[in-house]
Amino acid sequence: MTRRRLGSEPDRRPDLLAVEEPLEIRLSGKPLTVTMRTPGHDVELASGFLVSEGVVTRAEHVVAAIHCGGPGTGGEQNSYNVLDVALGEGAAAVVTQAERNYYTTSACGVCGKTSIDAIETSSSFDVAGDDVVVAAELLVTLPDRLRTGQRVFDTTGGLHAAALFDAATGELLVLREDIGRHNAVDKVIGWAAMHDRLPLRGTVLQVSGRAGFEIVQKAVMAGIPTLAAVSAPSSLAAELAARSGLTLIGFLRGESMNIYTRADRVR
Amino acid sequence: MTRRRLGSEPDRRPDLLAVEEPLEIRLSGKPLTVTMRTPGHDVELASGFLVSEGVVTRAEHVVAAIHCGGPGTGGEQNSYNVLDVALGEGAAAVVTQAERNYYTTSACGVCGKTSIDAIETSSSFDVAGDDVVVAAELLVTLPDRLRTGQRVFDTTGGLHAAALFDAATGELLVLREDIGRHNAVDKVIGWAAMHDRLPLRGTVLQVSGRAGFEIVQKAVMAGIPTLAAVSAPSSLAAELAARSGLTLIGFLRGESMNIYTRADRVR
Repeated sequence: MTRRRLGSEPDRRPDLLAVEEPLEIRLSGKPLTVTMRTPGHDVELASGFLVSEGVVTRAEHVVAAIHCGGPGTGGEQNSYNVLDVALGEGAAAVVTQAERNYYTTSACGVCGKTSIDAIETSSSFDVAGDDVVVAAELLVTLPDRLRTGQRVFDTTGGLHAAALFDAATGELLVLREDIGRHNAVDKVIGWAAMHDRLPLRGTVLQVSGRAGFEIVQKAVMAGIPTLAAVSAPSSLAAELAARSGLTLIGFLRGESMNIYTRADRVR
Repeated sequence: MTRRRLGSEPDRRPDLLAVEEPLEIRLSGKPLTVTMRTPGHDVELASGFLVSEGVVTRAEHVVAAIHCGGPGTGGEQNSYNVLDVALGEGAAAVVTQAERNYYTTSACGVCGKTSIDAIETSSSFDVAGDDVVVAAELLVTLPDRLRTGQRVFDTTGGLHAAALFDAATGELLVLREDIGRHNAVDKVIGWAAMHDRLPLRGTVLQVSGRAGFEIVQKAVMAGIPTLAAVSAPSSLAAELAARSGLTLIGFLRGESMNIYTRADRVR
């Protein structure tokens, strides 16, 4: 890498970059999706992705997850970029429906009944009914605690993060980083699913950056009642939060925040 | 929206959010993909997406693009969230191959020959051979010019942007915003394709935020020789840039920048 500054000589130096690699998630050998992710916590990532898709809600739903073969770009025999998930009985029943939606997305062409219908999944958990209350004094500390927990960001400047906190005690339950914000959230939710902690009642999910529709949807699918983002939410994110009874907080910076939905939960 | 600041009373006020809506792109009635985007410039977005997929390289390749029916969430007859693209002869020949990759991705389960192969597309254009030279003095002005051109960001704080500049004169050719960084780039490239300006020799693509693999790939597919990001690139982005002969610049801030590949083009 060459460092250039106006008025100075170019300066060659080594550089640390955040690692990005594709991960193909398979269900019993059948490819489901490919995501660009930062390697590490792949089983959590896949489990969390399957929570978002409505397939997994309990630890026993993922029976096994194996990095399957496939030569990598360097010719190695296992690139660790393909993860094959074997589902337990309860989840296998659901997946038929999920796959049906999936194939509808890729092949159906009936105008009016569009594949856009497939983007909204329905949650097994009642987020609206969670009577959690969270102190504004706690919320304003979360962005700094998220930032402090980010080990890779400090060296590369290139990673998103998501962390789950107990709304009552403020305890940090889990923090994950990834080059993709969605993946960081999937890793957090996958961790919770593998520890049989769904639904995540009484928790706050803090994310770096913005809160789009998919982040709200992932929170709702995991039963998380409170989502806080450092930056702006989107219109569709706020609409889904309102419909689901999720407390959506944006622009959480310094001592202030914007509360878009269910402000009654913030004390 | 409720504005909360520690030590002050909650303050209710209206809020402007960046609009996020799904767009389903169809080819001759057949669904190809769904993307979450900020409405506007949809035809550019679809055209640019098809450039990235290696389907479109010339204006005549997109014969028509029509917002197809489908009731929206409000029950309206046309939600403007489904865009049906009719391809010209040259592109229709290529799409068979693209669809083959696409269906491989969703259905093939052969271990070893994974659908990960489908993520890298090969460009019709020779980026490495572009003998463009760009002044460091010009490059350091681009982030501010990008930011100044962002009309929606100022009101919502929630949009990414991409802009194309002439490397010799510094002229701004086009700037587009979107809630998704990839979509902003697709809109820029789609604009260029519709104006028959591919390959984009002698240009600089400036993006807000980070530069991941897909952004580098989109630049290469459009024949853009220079890509500059405000934040960090990923490892895979730098690898693809090196392999393609693209000049990749990151952390372009103030008067300094990191040049990861083909630094010989920066004067």
